[in-house]
Amino acid sequence: MKAKVHITLKAGVLDPQGKAIGRALSSLGFAGVGEVRQGKVIELELAETDRAKAEASLRAMCEKLLANTVIENYAIELRP
Amino acid sequence: MKAKVHITLKAGVLDPQGKAIGRALSSLGFAGVGEVRQGKVIELELAETDRAKAEASLRAMCEKLLANTVIENYAIELRP
Repeated sequence: MKAKVHITLKAGVLDPQGKAIGRALSSLGFAGVGEVRQGKVIELELAETDRAKAEASLRAMCEKLLANTVIENYAIELRP
Repeated sequence: MKAKVHITLKAGVLDPQGKAIGRALSSLGFAGVGEVRQGKVIELELAETDRAKAEASLRAMCEKLLANTVIENYAIELRP
């Protein structure tokens, strides 16, 4: 089973990387770019074939390692 | 218009970050985790309302700044 975990900063958390990208785009002449925020995607291959078990395991991975839940949200996407 | 740009390493390009995540998951006791790869997501707010123009502009941003097209692929996702 293949999984994608999307990790994004929570609303209100300062995102200096996003800000830097926004400024770089402006200085390259791209106008009309508003807020820019950067997140992560982690793609995993899981041996688990049961959807519910895979999701529970991914949730545990996010809580323990992949995301810093104080400042980050995560979303799990599963494909067989 | 809101846009998401997904940037992933091309197949065959070594991903040390992904490897490190995979090893960390194993050492935390998560079994059955195969290949792990890490990518980026950049969320942008665009003033442009025309879909085709927004996409062309995003494509230019990716080619010039957001992605290193030698080793990375990008995918653009647009929402009104």
